[in-house]
Amino acid sequence: MAFRPLHDRVLVRRIEAEEKTAGGIIIPDSAQEKPSEGQIVAVGSGAKAEDGTVTPLDVKEGDRVLFKKWGAEEIKIDGEDLLIMKESDILGIVG
Amino acid sequence: MAFRPLHDRVLVRRIEAEEKTAGGIIIPDSAQEKPSEGQIVAVGSGAKAEDGTVTPLDVKEGDRVLFKKWGAEEIKIDGEDLLIMKESDILGIVG
Amino acid sequence: MAFRPLHDRVLVRRIEAEEKTAGGIIIPDSAQEKPSEGQIVAVGSGAKAEDGTVTPLDVKEGDRVLFKKWGAEEIKIDGEDLLIMKESDILGIVG
Amino acid sequence: MAFRPLHDRVLVRRIEAEEKTAGGIIIPDSAQEKPSEGQIVAVGSGAKAEDGTVTPLDVKEGDRVLFKKWGAEEIKIDGEDLLIMKESDILGIVG
Amino acid sequence: MAFRPLHDRVLVRRIEAEEKTAGGIIIPDSAQEKPSEGQIVAVGSGAKAEDGTVTPLDVKEGDRVLFKKWGAEEIKIDGEDLLIMKESDILGIVG
Amino acid sequence: MAFRPLHDRVLVRRIEAEEKTAGGIIIPDSAQEKPSEGQIVAVGSGAKAEDGTVTPLDVKEGDRVLFKKWGAEEIKIDGEDLLIMKESDILGIVG
Amino acid sequence: MAFRPLHDRVLVRRIEAEEKTAGGIIIPDSAQEKPSEGQIVAVGSGAKAEDGTVTPLDVKEGDRVLFKKWGAEEIKIDGEDLLIMKESDILGIVG
Repeated sequence: MAFRPLHDRVLVRRIEAEEKTAGGIIIPDSAQEKPSEGQIVAVGSGAKAEDGTVTPLDVKEGDRVLFKKWGAEEIKIDGEDLLIMKESDILGIVG
Repeated sequence: MAFRPLHDRVLVRRIEAEEKTAGGIIIPDSAQEKPSEGQIVAVGSGAKAEDGTVTPLDVKEGDRVLFKKWGAEEIKIDGEDLLIMKESDILGIVG
Repeated sequence: MAFRPLHDRVLVRRIEAEEKTAGGIIIPDSAQEKPSEGQIVAVGSGAKAEDGTVTPLDVKEGDRVLFKKWGAEEIKIDGEDLLIMKESDILGIVG
Repeated sequence: MAFRPLHDRVLVRRIEAEEKTAGGIIIPDSAQEKPSEGQIVAVGSGAKAEDGTVTPLDVKEGDRVLFKKWGAEEIKIDGEDLLIMKESDILGIVG
Repeated sequence: MAFRPLHDRVLVRRIEAEEKTAGGIIIPDSAQEKPSEGQIVAVGSGAKAEDGTVTPLDVKEGDRVLFKKWGAEEIKIDGEDLLIMKESDILGIVG
Repeated sequence: MAFRPLHDRVLVRRIEAEEKTAGGIIIPDSAQEKPSEGQIVAVGSGAKAEDGTVTPLDVKEGDRVLFKKWGAEEIKIDGEDLLIMKESDILGIVG
Repeated sequence: MAFRPLHDRVLVRRIEAEEKTAGGIIIPDSAQEKPSEGQIVAVGSGAKAEDGTVTPLDVKEGDRVLFKKWGAEEIKIDGEDLLIMKESDILGIVG
């Protein structure tokens, strides 16, 4: 199932943080407010201004990004948990 | 009865999520905050800027969409429960 | 008594929902938050932008509309209860 | 004493609603949130946009209007209780 | 000591309301939320828009005005209590 | 250590109000909400509009100003307590 | 691992305040609301206006800055704790 985000929204696959130490002990994530890492799966056509002007986004499919969890909507596509957010919730591009 | 949404609003028919497992056990929807799936039934003529400029919408009749329940208004047309929302409450187009 | 709504306001006569079943039993309206149906009685000259530009409204006298009760002001004109609201509180046009 | 409202403000003399029935029984005003009726006494020179553009108002001295009590400031001029409000608090013109 | 208000601010000297009746009885001011009367002592150079455009104010030194107490800052200049407020807190000009 | 405020911010050195009477009795400042007096130490290059336009500020180094304490950030530069605030928190220029 | 902040965001390495006195006594930071000092590690391409115009930032890599802690997001890159914030959270440039 394909999914095309609308306007300035992007579809993101979360990259789970390593939660085990070398010795295999699970470290509970005590700082859930911290930004998360993910990979862009799909992007909208761009931000749409009030006068109809469309400005393409600055992130593209495949980019690894850090994002704020706060604004993300959780959705399930073909059984996979993904996130939809606005480009403005993305803090920057990794790598 | 026909219904024409005004401006940047769209009329959506909700597509009920499959709530039974293969074995027929009903799984209560414990995550009602998640986005819902629906089909566009009708669209307004477009977003109207303060200076009167009208920008046509990016979704069209028949599109399958994911949307945020939060902003939707429930209405009943010819006995059918439908939803009216702004295009900005639509997260993206499925398929 | 005539009444001309100002700017982007419209005057609406509420169309009471049928509250009796075929057998005449009154069904209390338990969902008062739902949109209501009404008929446009009069419309303002249009939305006025900050620079003075006036954009005519998209609804006109006689239109049957669905509207959100939330934003409406109740007024009484010649003994009749009517509603004044902004065009943006109107969800769409019926018929 | 003259009073010139500034910008998009108007000076309004309230028209008291008839509070007696034909038989002279006083009906307490139980719906104080309802719009009130008044007459425009003076109007400002117009709404002033951020760039300095002035747009004349659509109401004029003598107009009978309905207004929202919410936004009005009560003032006393030459012993008379009057109201100052913005034109946007006026719902429409009567007559 | 001179004081030049910045931008769209004005300096106002409050005109105390007469608080004695003819017979000399003090009437306590029970309606402190009502607008106050004052005289413009100095005005700023004008409202400054985001693009740097400056629009001169509509009140001038010496004008008697009614203003909303809410937005005023109390300052003391050369031992005198004065008020600084934005022109938008002024309701109109008296006289 | 030099410090250049960014955009529409200014660096201010507070001028302490005289808190002793002639006889040397300390009068506690019971009105801490009142505006304070200070001297401009450094100013930013100007307010930056959304389109990148920069508008120079109206205060300059050395100006004695009254400002609202509310919006000021306290910083310590070379052991001296100073304040950073936006020009919009400055009420006017003294002298 | 490289990290490119998006739009008007900047990546900042905090410069820890000296927390020991000459005699080596640790002074607890009792004023955590005060602005912090840091060094710019990377900057976004610029603020993006609604119409797509990009305005380059005024801070650059290597700048020592004071910033408001309030708006900063804590992230960890290659094991180092860094901060992402908008340029508008930066009060000024040191040195």
